[in-house]
Amino acid sequence: MTINQNQKAFLGAARELLGEKGLTCDEDDLIPWTTDWRGRYSGSAIALASPASTDEVAALVKLCADYSIPIVPQGGNSGMAGGATPDDSGTSILLSLRRMNAILSLDAEAGQCVCQAGVILQTLHEAAEKLDQRFPLTLGGKGSATIGGLVSTNAGGTQVLRHGTMRSQVLGLEAVLADGSIFNGLTALKKDNRGFDLKQLLIGSEGTIGIVTAVNLRLLPAASGRATAWIGLPSITGARTLLRYVERAMGESLEGFEVVPDHCLESVLDHLADARPPLAQGHKWNALIECMSADSDSAALREKLEGVLAGAMEAGLLEDAVIASNEYQSETFWNLRDSISAAERALGPAMQHDISVPVEQMPEFILAAIPQIENTFPGTRGVAFGHLGDGNVHFHVLAPQDAVPGEWEESTGKQISSHVYDLVTQWGGSISAEHGIGQMKVGDFGRLGDPVALGMIRSVKAALDPKGLMNPGKLVPLIEASESG
Amino acid sequence: MTINQNQKAFLGAARELLGEKGLTCDEDDLIPWTTDWRGRYSGSAIALASPASTDEVAALVKLCADYSIPIVPQGGNSGMAGGATPDDSGTSILLSLRRMNAILSLDAEAGQCVCQAGVILQTLHEAAEKLDQRFPLTLGGKGSATIGGLVSTNAGGTQVLRHGTMRSQVLGLEAVLADGSIFNGLTALKKDNRGFDLKQLLIGSEGTIGIVTAVNLRLLPAASGRATAWIGLPSITGARTLLRYVERAMGESLEGFEVVPDHCLESVLDHLADARPPLAQGHKWNALIECMSADSDSAALREKLEGVLAGAMEAGLLEDAVIASNEYQSETFWNLRDSISAAERALGPAMQHDISVPVEQMPEFILAAIPQIENTFPGTRGVAFGHLGDGNVHFHVLAPQDAVPGEWEESTGKQISSHVYDLVTQWGGSISAEHGIGQMKVGDFGRLGDPVALGMIRSVKAALDPKGLMNPGKLVPLIEASESG
Repeated sequence: MTINQNQKAFLGAARELLGEKGLTCDEDDLIPWTTDWRGRYSGSAIALASPASTDEVAALVKLCADYSIPIVPQGGNSGMAGGATPDDSGTSILLSLRRMNAILSLDAEAGQCVCQAGVILQTLHEAAEKLDQRFPLTLGGKGSATIGGLVSTNAGGTQVLRHGTMRSQVLGLEAVLADGSIFNGLTALKKDNRGFDLKQLLIGSEGTIGIVTAVNLRLLPAASGRATAWIGLPSITGARTLLRYVERAMGESLEGFEVVPDHCLESVLDHLADARPPLAQGHKWNALIECMSADSDSAALREKLEGVLAGAMEAGLLEDAVIASNEYQSETFWNLRDSISAAERALGPAMQHDISVPVEQMPEFILAAIPQIENTFPGTRGVAFGHLGDGNVHFHVLAPQDAVPGEWEESTGKQISSHVYDLVTQWGGSISAEHGIGQMKVGDFGRLGDPVALGMIRSVKAALDPKGLMNPGKLVPLIEASESG
Repeated sequence: MTINQNQKAFLGAARELLGEKGLTCDEDDLIPWTTDWRGRYSGSAIALASPASTDEVAALVKLCADYSIPIVPQGGNSGMAGGATPDDSGTSILLSLRRMNAILSLDAEAGQCVCQAGVILQTLHEAAEKLDQRFPLTLGGKGSATIGGLVSTNAGGTQVLRHGTMRSQVLGLEAVLADGSIFNGLTALKKDNRGFDLKQLLIGSEGTIGIVTAVNLRLLPAASGRATAWIGLPSITGARTLLRYVERAMGESLEGFEVVPDHCLESVLDHLADARPPLAQGHKWNALIECMSADSDSAALREKLEGVLAGAMEAGLLEDAVIASNEYQSETFWNLRDSISAAERALGPAMQHDISVPVEQMPEFILAAIPQIENTFPGTRGVAFGHLGDGNVHFHVLAPQDAVPGEWEESTGKQISSHVYDLVTQWGGSISAEHGIGQMKVGDFGRLGDPVALGMIRSVKAALDPKGLMNPGKLVPLIEASESG
């Protein structure tokens, strides 16, 4: 890569600021981080910066502003929308927050934990557990995802039904803004009405207006009871009825309500060597129900759930049900749910869509959208599974058996995605429920987003990042030539 | 008032748009609304507009943009910071949302209610109750406060400990922006990560970047059980210890934890004709505890709370306690709490401050701040009462007995407020916990706010309201001459 005079001067200043440990231009050091973990997006960068403190981040961002160097912030590089991957111009600096991985304080009494951005989610879980607390957000990538990335993308996961997304966990936040100034909002104030809630603006902004450097997160008392159930259902509309029934009966203890169609479960059972079906017979739809409580023990919670499910069965709301008799069996049920994507990959190419519609409309959406896609794109198979309780499913479309991997995704696959996003938008839903916009969906967002909302986003972006150096090409759709006139 | 040519042309166009019912320039019609309900702020306006629909609001705001007419939106005129009162230039139009008072839908199954901005809080409470639901936010002004105003100021109240402020209740939001475009975010999506969360930006923005016209609010199942307790305590630090104890023991059912010092209770007992002290003897501090449950009935909840308080007494965490034996007695306890301000008014002038610090630090703050104020301003008396569970108290300073009402507030009173806000800021707290900035605190916010946060607020305001016509003079501190150079 050729480096121009301006970049050379910037790199000199950055090296002076960050030292040898904090800056590298070595290709071998850069390569693991310039491609996203799924290998879908690839780019290049003039250097990888790894500051050790918020002050170093601030000074580096100030340098970037002075030298007009674009910045791509990165946490665990486990995002789903290419939001942490630089473009291929090779003009950006990759700013890793991974060195800033200290838990600064953990106060069980107050239920608060202050973390630097680079703390890995699983590390936080373990630290909280040691103090008989828990951090109520989890997801598949917990072993690599960082707190900063999770906040910047407002991550979801499997406990959102009860505890909300990352936004609901953030009590305070510190970020470095485009001019290198530090927004210091770490103090947790339960009530604070001093003007616009800037913290909320920064959460989910994917590094486009500020770089999250630390957060104050809420903790809950550790759960003492857990009950997990696998349910056989005749239909997806029946799943919604059961959801409402269980919500009323289990109240606050209901933490997750996931749905899995029969063929997804079959693929998983084929894929996992020693997996067994939870129920004696197959059912058109399955629901996975998770309850947690800090008040009851597992035996009491299971008994309560058993009574509720027995009532549901009597009312004709389900076909069959089994409650996990111990933690191991709970994990077995969740392993079936969590293996869907891996099992699907073994079947060939697929287009994956993380979408939401209002909870009440999700069954009808699934029933309408799957045949519409399958009819429009013959040979494909539509699959919807996931967080019914949040109105959020992963809507996957599997390629026909004769599709050529790599080629299909770029041709028919792209048309399918556009079609899915069109449908979701018609249903008043979101083309990104929990993964963010990143670079993956920025085009579709520009095409389908409400022009008024897009206008606000562009205005706020221009106001807070006037030079356009903060994670360029992500989240904020460009104005098309026809519009800008 | 003299009207210039531009204003005359605007009023003609506005009258054509809104009709006779929707626009008045009659002084008698305007007077009730150009002064805030406490009579602290007064201004004038060229007209009072009362549009009947979101489209009419949008068209009116567009007209205002075309004719450069400042807009002051207003709901129930029950705000605490003068945010809905025009300045005295007489150039603004007062935009009342009160005619838009329809509950558009109320879905008990989904737990959602779509309201126009002018719906009065108490009306919403009653509508929800009819369907065995409840809206979990309440406050003293519920008989006049409108949903639009409550959202625009992110109102709090007495159930924030458990249910959060207004921000936590809003599932979707519609607003008219400065250019007259309509931001349509009414659809409730539990997960939606399409860029910045603009809804969050509009909540609490006090009409300075958009006018809330409708919201989609969450409802909860009606509470079937209620238990209220009045507690006698030796100290405010003891109140915090009891709070943590009760939080752990009562879990999700704890909805309110209010504190009242002895002399506040005495004033209330003097002020209310037939009030009786809840406990046999006086205590230095009192706590009012409220528990609600949708699962247990009142008898069961009272029994549980009784056991918890008996344990606390054994552990030496309280001096005395009484649990309300019925709804009537619960209301009696709350009436004592809610009469503090009225009782205080009978004692003479006082400066009132709605402030917050981190929950854990509130006792120490109170213990430090009261003597500091009383020593600096001899003859005054510092009083702190309210939402200890939210780290938010109403910090009032009563005038010396010889103070001249009206005069004292403008001289010493103002100095006292500055001093209180200085202290709060030193403690990392907020000069507005739940009342907003409005015009009342805009100067102190400019003086004490974090310059980085103020810079962001000014940039966002300028980006979304480039002509500066949206509720000018509220929330956004002007840049001082010394800064702007």
